[in-house]
Amino acid sequence: MGMDSIKKYQELINKNLNEELIGNSPENLYAPIKYVLKIGGKRLRSALCLMACEMFSGDYQQAIKPALALEIFHNFTLLHDDIMDDAPVRRNKTTVHKKWDSNIALLSGDAMSIIAYKYIAQTPVQLNQCLEVFNDTALKICEGQQLDMDFENNINVTIKDYIYMISLKTAVFIACSLKIGAIIGGANAKDSQLIYDAGYNIGLAFQLQDDLLDTYGEKNKFGKQIGGDIISNKKTFLLINALQSANKQQHEELISRLSIKNPDPNEKIKTFIDIYNNLNVKDETLNQINNYLELAITDINDISINSNSKESLYQFVDYIRNRNH
Amino acid sequence: MGMDSIKKYQELINKNLNEELIGNSPENLYAPIKYVLKIGGKRLRSALCLMACEMFSGDYQQAIKPALALEIFHNFTLLHDDIMDDAPVRRNKTTVHKKWDSNIALLSGDAMSIIAYKYIAQTPVQLNQCLEVFNDTALKICEGQQLDMDFENNINVTIKDYIYMISLKTAVFIACSLKIGAIIGGANAKDSQLIYDAGYNIGLAFQLQDDLLDTYGEKNKFGKQIGGDIISNKKTFLLINALQSANKQQHEELISRLSIKNPDPNEKIKTFIDIYNNLNVKDETLNQINNYLELAITDINDISINSNSKESLYQFVDYIRNRNH
Repeated sequence: MGMDSIKKYQELINKNLNEELIGNSPENLYAPIKYVLKIGGKRLRSALCLMACEMFSGDYQQAIKPALALEIFHNFTLLHDDIMDDAPVRRNKTTVHKKWDSNIALLSGDAMSIIAYKYIAQTPVQLNQCLEVFNDTALKICEGQQLDMDFENNINVTIKDYIYMISLKTAVFIACSLKIGAIIGGANAKDSQLIYDAGYNIGLAFQLQDDLLDTYGEKNKFGKQIGGDIISNKKTFLLINALQSANKQQHEELISRLSIKNPDPNEKIKTFIDIYNNLNVKDETLNQINNYLELAITDINDISINSNSKESLYQFVDYIRNRNH
Repeated sequence: MGMDSIKKYQELINKNLNEELIGNSPENLYAPIKYVLKIGGKRLRSALCLMACEMFSGDYQQAIKPALALEIFHNFTLLHDDIMDDAPVRRNKTTVHKKWDSNIALLSGDAMSIIAYKYIAQTPVQLNQCLEVFNDTALKICEGQQLDMDFENNINVTIKDYIYMISLKTAVFIACSLKIGAIIGGANAKDSQLIYDAGYNIGLAFQLQDDLLDTYGEKNKFGKQIGGDIISNKKTFLLINALQSANKQQHEELISRLSIKNPDPNEKIKTFIDIYNNLNVKDETLNQINNYLELAITDINDISINSNSKESLYQFVDYIRNRNH
């Protein structure tokens, strides 16, 4: 079901990424980039870009180069995020800064972002508009990542602060991927905005799912360390909700573990999950995910093309609702 | 003399950088960017871009946005280089990763590179061509930085390897700055290539001067730690020449100090400088700088515009020849 509808686009992205020459020398610069791109990932942003282009024009071809740009840029942000979070594992593989070193990870990330720009520069139509959307979004992603880090040392983060942070860190990029595809596909301004809004809401739901999977997922499927967010004091939707609805004792247990340096990670994860379970944080998160996906469906309903053309995007919403990795 | 000719462009860049809005929130993202851009620097690349545009068109206005892009991108590369080299001081100020931390330096660097792209996207004419030159150059700069790091652990670096590395790390960017200005100013393909070649040779000379100043400069003028290259085992033009012309005893002294972990820095610097002095490495470097600058002058001579219009660029060559910071 859901996943099938985007499979064709994912395969297109993988095929084109493999065909593209990334460069070979110096090896310490390019080998990490190839490693990151070869590991895979869901190719969601690039797939959505192709899907949106095809929705409006009946053809995805014109969107391939910018879609590759989005995919490479996304992987660049993950590479640098993993340095900043000192994450050991991504997609079940050792992260670049652990496999090589942090200088190599830093510089190959920089090179990846430039390679992304080489692809966006090859956008065959509406280059100016696509570049503007891409640049605005890229800067917001940095703002979101900085807020995410700032929040690690702040116990007063509200749900509103959190939603603002993930809107920057995650939602605008999914929105931008759909919008760039739509612009290239010839969508008018109103439809481009609607698909952007749909992507924004999908993106918020996607990030809440990610928070959920980081705590409740299966490591082999999710591909990251389970409980990583808890260990690094990430102010996730789960934790903020728990802090808000906790009784005095639960609140103290959470706060004390947020302030201890080098706590026992397994004990910390277990304590947090017990409290989350006690407070039904998981259901609250699932409800919120549904709310955002319903908003996305309303946005998609309002797009002024025939319903058949929207089918793949509706299916994508279902896929997000049901994803376990 | 020399410096006056570019002063007007430097002032233009500083004025426009100050007027431009960089963003304010989150503060940990934008404060380091403002800090870096406020410290100043010679604004050479952006000044050269304006100069080249005016050479061909009589007006620099159209080149202001891409010139700002070049300046911001250059400062981004310095910010990230300083993390990789763990450099404590730049332009007589504490580096960003020391004043804040390395995560903040990493991310604000990323944001700076995106801001640079926001400016290059505003190039009012010949956007496609300028983007292509910019992207190709940006990637080469990463390749050069990686080679520079690779060379730190390699005692067999030849002069040829070294020139290739600095061509990527330094020369192509100065070449690109002139070429983008020339393209915007309406230069034909041949003249664009000639000014690129001139910039390339100026860039090689510039980097050799930098190597010289790192060892023989005055800290207050140069703005960086003197002897920093020696401490970090940088394979500079000076060191490679010394290794090539050293007698057996000198060679052993150099090699042994390159392999000791955590040597006394002052003793190491003194030993290297004594050997450099004994081998006339300074004069050899000055000769080579002159050779590259003569090549640049030949390139400039061949540009098909009247000589008066070239005056500022000739003066710039003189400035490079005589610079002490």
